[in-house]
Amino acid sequence: MAPSERQRVFIEAARREFVRNGYGASSIRTIAQEAGVSLSALYYHYKNKQDLLLAILIDGVNAFDAMCDEELSRVGDDPVERLRALVVALVRFRTICQEQSLMIGTEVRNLEPENAAVYEQRRRSGNELLGSIIDDGMRSGAFTTPYPEDCRRSILAMTTSIANWYDPDGPDTPADIAARYGDLALLLLQPRP
Amino acid sequence: MAPSERQRVFIEAARREFVRNGYGASSIRTIAQEAGVSLSALYYHYKNKQDLLLAILIDGVNAFDAMCDEELSRVGDDPVERLRALVVALVRFRTICQEQSLMIGTEVRNLEPENAAVYEQRRRSGNELLGSIIDDGMRSGAFTTPYPEDCRRSILAMTTSIANWYDPDGPDTPADIAARYGDLALLLLQPRP
Repeated sequence: MAPSERQRVFIEAARREFVRNGYGASSIRTIAQEAGVSLSALYYHYKNKQDLLLAILIDGVNAFDAMCDEELSRVGDDPVERLRALVVALVRFRTICQEQSLMIGTEVRNLEPENAAVYEQRRRSGNELLGSIIDDGMRSGAFTTPYPEDCRRSILAMTTSIANWYDPDGPDTPADIAARYGDLALLLLQPRP
Repeated sequence: MAPSERQRVFIEAARREFVRNGYGASSIRTIAQEAGVSLSALYYHYKNKQDLLLAILIDGVNAFDAMCDEELSRVGDDPVERLRALVVALVRFRTICQEQSLMIGTEVRNLEPENAAVYEQRRRSGNELLGSIIDDGMRSGAFTTPYPEDCRRSILAMTTSIANWYDPDGPDTPADIAARYGDLALLLLQPRP
């Protein structure tokens, strides 16, 4: 379920606090202050800091899923087009949601086991999408790589790392970067000439 | 300077403790116990937990540098051969030093600013090596990619991520993986036909 407008304020405030101080050193009191509400108003929506961490991470998965749907809706069944569209979604997430993306890398390990399982299951769908596009392309002969699984992992890793260097004030737009990484991803998959 | 045999025992004990509990929750008392020494014996070599973290990370850089030297000493000046040799070193580090590699990803941000600067400077040399091999290959026309900088970042990201899935008990040896990732890295760089 998408967070309410109120919950979105809490999620954004918690994200800022976690990015600033890391999960361990973050204070739920500061998050409430940052959101401009009392601690009890915050506790009405989220029972603790862990609950907020899960909400932030699930919110990121939802944002990524929406980007995938949007990009894939523009293209047909051709695996090359679908691969390029998915790379655009991956790059958009790592650039437009840069802070979220960096937080995933450092804070997922602070999820308690039960929440980690919830998150892992939700997150898997995005990773499976890339795998299924590659599988389709292998079956149809559109991709000829001998290493489809290494390609899948490599495409995820190389797009994930964009969040480490992307500069929103720099010369490269997310669309520029997506076009280049679309080319690189296709080179790995060795499309049929 | 390489750590003494004694210091190596402390470094290994600290690494185990940091991997188990994370830097923040790790205890220098546990590290001393793990190393089989008194706390004062440990303090004689390292003034605090931060000092041990820096020592572990620098030790990782040294291990990686040694792997680079070894692999590059086997090949001549050809950029394609040098690129493959460097990928072997990158993959060896991410597989043989898997624990170390994963620790870098999560614990570097716990370095205090002064130590982060020391580490960053030492670490840079490895990243520059890949950049200089790619530059050489671009100048000589051995590589024809329009995006050498994206290739450099992608090759680092895709090899770094190997530590996340490598299974020492699995069927793939580090040499198998290095051969595949050498192929993939070269595809990105578009070697002259």
